[in-house]
Amino acid sequence: MGIALPPNKKVFWFTGLSGSGKTTLAEALCNHLKTKNISYFSLDGDVLRKGLCRDLGFSLNDRKENLRRAAELSLILLQSYDFILASFITPTNEIRNMIRNIISNDIIEIYIKCSVEKCIERDPKGLYKKALSNDIKFFTGISSVYEPPINPDLIINTQKSNINNSCNQIKEFINQFT
Amino acid sequence: MGIALPPNKKVFWFTGLSGSGKTTLAEALCNHLKTKNISYFSLDGDVLRKGLCRDLGFSLNDRKENLRRAAELSLILLQSYDFILASFITPTNEIRNMIRNIISNDIIEIYIKCSVEKCIERDPKGLYKKALSNDIKFFTGISSVYEPPINPDLIINTQKSNINNSCNQIKEFINQFT
Repeated sequence: MGIALPPNKKVFWFTGLSGSGKTTLAEALCNHLKTKNISYFSLDGDVLRKGLCRDLGFSLNDRKENLRRAAELSLILLQSYDFILASFITPTNEIRNMIRNIISNDIIEIYIKCSVEKCIERDPKGLYKKALSNDIKFFTGISSVYEPPINPDLIINTQKSNINNSCNQIKEFINQFT
Repeated sequence: MGIALPPNKKVFWFTGLSGSGKTTLAEALCNHLKTKNISYFSLDGDVLRKGLCRDLGFSLNDRKENLRRAAELSLILLQSYDFILASFITPTNEIRNMIRNIISNDIIEIYIKCSVEKCIERDPKGLYKKALSNDIKFFTGISSVYEPPINPDLIINTQKSNINNSCNQIKEFINQFT
């Protein structure tokens, strides 16, 4: 869109399985940014799919289009905020490359790492249970692919590290951009 | 999306033919809002079609989807700004009803009225010339329908009224919301 951005504007893109902790960590980061008086906007799939992307399903093509719009929306919102926190499963390298091409230098990719087995155990929204009994189709990690990112800017392993430690890790990382 | 809006937040939706003066009037309004220290965000088709809606063409279905996204985007942006100025041809009553349903009570519809003949005479972007020689398909007013709005909140007749008068008219109208 040819928008000129101030140097410190960034999109922090959280990728990882459902239940890996993306939203929890993004929320912790929101609170941290508030205390630092940094303006931010938080985006996630649940909100977009109720509005802007309500026409889309969960096939890989529809996910790609959902995430293309999320990336374009991030760019628009970056005109108004310093940081955008985008929490989306973002399942494949092809999709992550597309997002990088849209957002360009202003994206920081954060991989929230956790095994499918552990996510099934957590299952905070009961979605894995439904996916395993085939009540949800195209569910990432069960019936749809998740490719770990090749070269993320940060990896947070929420399987090994507890919530407190994970939150501290992300806050410390983000401080270099504030 | 269930966003609770402060009472004075509004989306001003400009509808009218290409060349009717939507962008000119929206720009005049931007300057007016600046002097009043009111936060605003201006959206138009040219910008959206380079990013968020670059997958869409100009068939009536694609236009409808383009405008659905514009309406959803307006709602998202209304979280950050007092006024959204949306300048889109918005050709049919069905589409305008869809937009009203998305934005609900917070939309003010402004019809920028001007005959096709006058718009052809102005042709600021040379688009009518191309449409008349069939170099552009689905061009509103030539090869695609424009239905005048049934009950707009304001009509500005840019055929009868010169730019200065039209700008003054819209500024006066908007003052009741500031």
